[in-house]
Amino acid sequence: MTINLKEKERLDELQRNGYRIIQNPEKFCFGMDAVLLSGFTRAKKGSKVLDLGTGTGIIPILLSAKTQAAHLTGLEIQGESVDMARRSVAINGLEEKITIVQGDIKEAGKLLGAASFDVVTCNPPYMIGQHGLVNPQAPKAIARHELLCTLEDVVAQTAKLLKPGGNFFMVHRPFRLTEIMVLLHQYGLEPKRMQMVHPYVNQEPNMVLMEANRGGKSRIRVEKPLIIYQEQGVYTPEIYEIYGY
Amino acid sequence: MTINLKEKERLDELQRNGYRIIQNPEKFCFGMDAVLLSGFTRAKKGSKVLDLGTGTGIIPILLSAKTQAAHLTGLEIQGESVDMARRSVAINGLEEKITIVQGDIKEAGKLLGAASFDVVTCNPPYMIGQHGLVNPQAPKAIARHELLCTLEDVVAQTAKLLKPGGNFFMVHRPFRLTEIMVLLHQYGLEPKRMQMVHPYVNQEPNMVLMEANRGGKSRIRVEKPLIIYQEQGVYTPEIYEIYGY
Repeated sequence: MTINLKEKERLDELQRNGYRIIQNPEKFCFGMDAVLLSGFTRAKKGSKVLDLGTGTGIIPILLSAKTQAAHLTGLEIQGESVDMARRSVAINGLEEKITIVQGDIKEAGKLLGAASFDVVTCNPPYMIGQHGLVNPQAPKAIARHELLCTLEDVVAQTAKLLKPGGNFFMVHRPFRLTEIMVLLHQYGLEPKRMQMVHPYVNQEPNMVLMEANRGGKSRIRVEKPLIIYQEQGVYTPEIYEIYGY
Repeated sequence: MTINLKEKERLDELQRNGYRIIQNPEKFCFGMDAVLLSGFTRAKKGSKVLDLGTGTGIIPILLSAKTQAAHLTGLEIQGESVDMARRSVAINGLEEKITIVQGDIKEAGKLLGAASFDVVTCNPPYMIGQHGLVNPQAPKAIARHELLCTLEDVVAQTAKLLKPGGNFFMVHRPFRLTEIMVLLHQYGLEPKRMQMVHPYVNQEPNMVLMEANRGGKSRIRVEKPLIIYQEQGVYTPEIYEIYGY
């Protein structure tokens, strides 16, 4: 198979099923948050999965290896990312299983159909607004700042897209936890499972993983903390397992 | 000084300023949650502090040792607890500093005056309703189950009782975190600081400590986890420090 890489692009190994992904380090590369979200997400055999703001398709590609989902859709607004994601899907022979759709999260309900997914995932932009941004059009800025969609857009569309009883999985920053819980609850996506991610055991968390259930009762399970490093440069066994080394 | 203990009562040392407390182990004794809440609470010099559902007065007594609060009020509905709390205040010579008021949390705003405290603390009943309770009139049941007041009563009254900018400190169970955050936000008490308490580092949390600010902006600091045991029977240094050993 000929792999068609464009200028500045590179091909990275994913440690899962031999899968690889095309990325452009000058634009945006996936981070540990995407990998942890894929480890946190649970999708039953045969389920239909949607990833909102999929970027280069890292989450559907990882979930196609880690779960027995029947089909995965990735929605992405930026043309260059859509193009990379589609080529990565092809490289891995996943054209039957993963569809990359170009479109706006704010229109996702209309675009993809109400109540049509068992699972929705999202690694949304964490930062509010464009305060201090040099280039608000840059792919990195769009991935990190709420320029094209807000947390409320993500939650509101997810509430439409999920089937009743379906589950939403998200990674975000702990400093926005109240907003996250208030919005999820308000849109009928009840938080059911949460895990804080700490760089070291004696440090504050820098990520939060959240599972919410459409129409669920108010009762959340807070899991043991997920610690990234046991010492400098050495991941904990949990992280090695999620990464699949 | 003659210490007047009633039948079944005992006098316990508090490891702070030589303070002691009267408890009746057949009724209810304070737990680690009260001690952790007193360690988590911050009250500036000269502040007016209120503890809702103070029981035998453990929290105002500990806070009078740990902070430079000017005055502390404990509100308690059960007559026997009020009586023990007042005698403990007297034993410790704290009559000028701590007032124990008998009354209902649901009436606290009227009883104690709107916007009249800098700090409100509460170690409320954690469990919803009286499912499976043998004796819903027992002091233990009232302390543990939402029989006489709900979480919403506590939050609604606190929103009245706090001065604008004042702070609320609460300990609760993690499984109710969504309700806690939604109610605090709804009543204008914005969650600002949270700490999960885990029995061991590799276990789920069994308590959550929460600080909220009346009128604050939505941004929360999630602290490093508080771990209770470093091995069986051996507290972590943080716990020894909070207990004051």
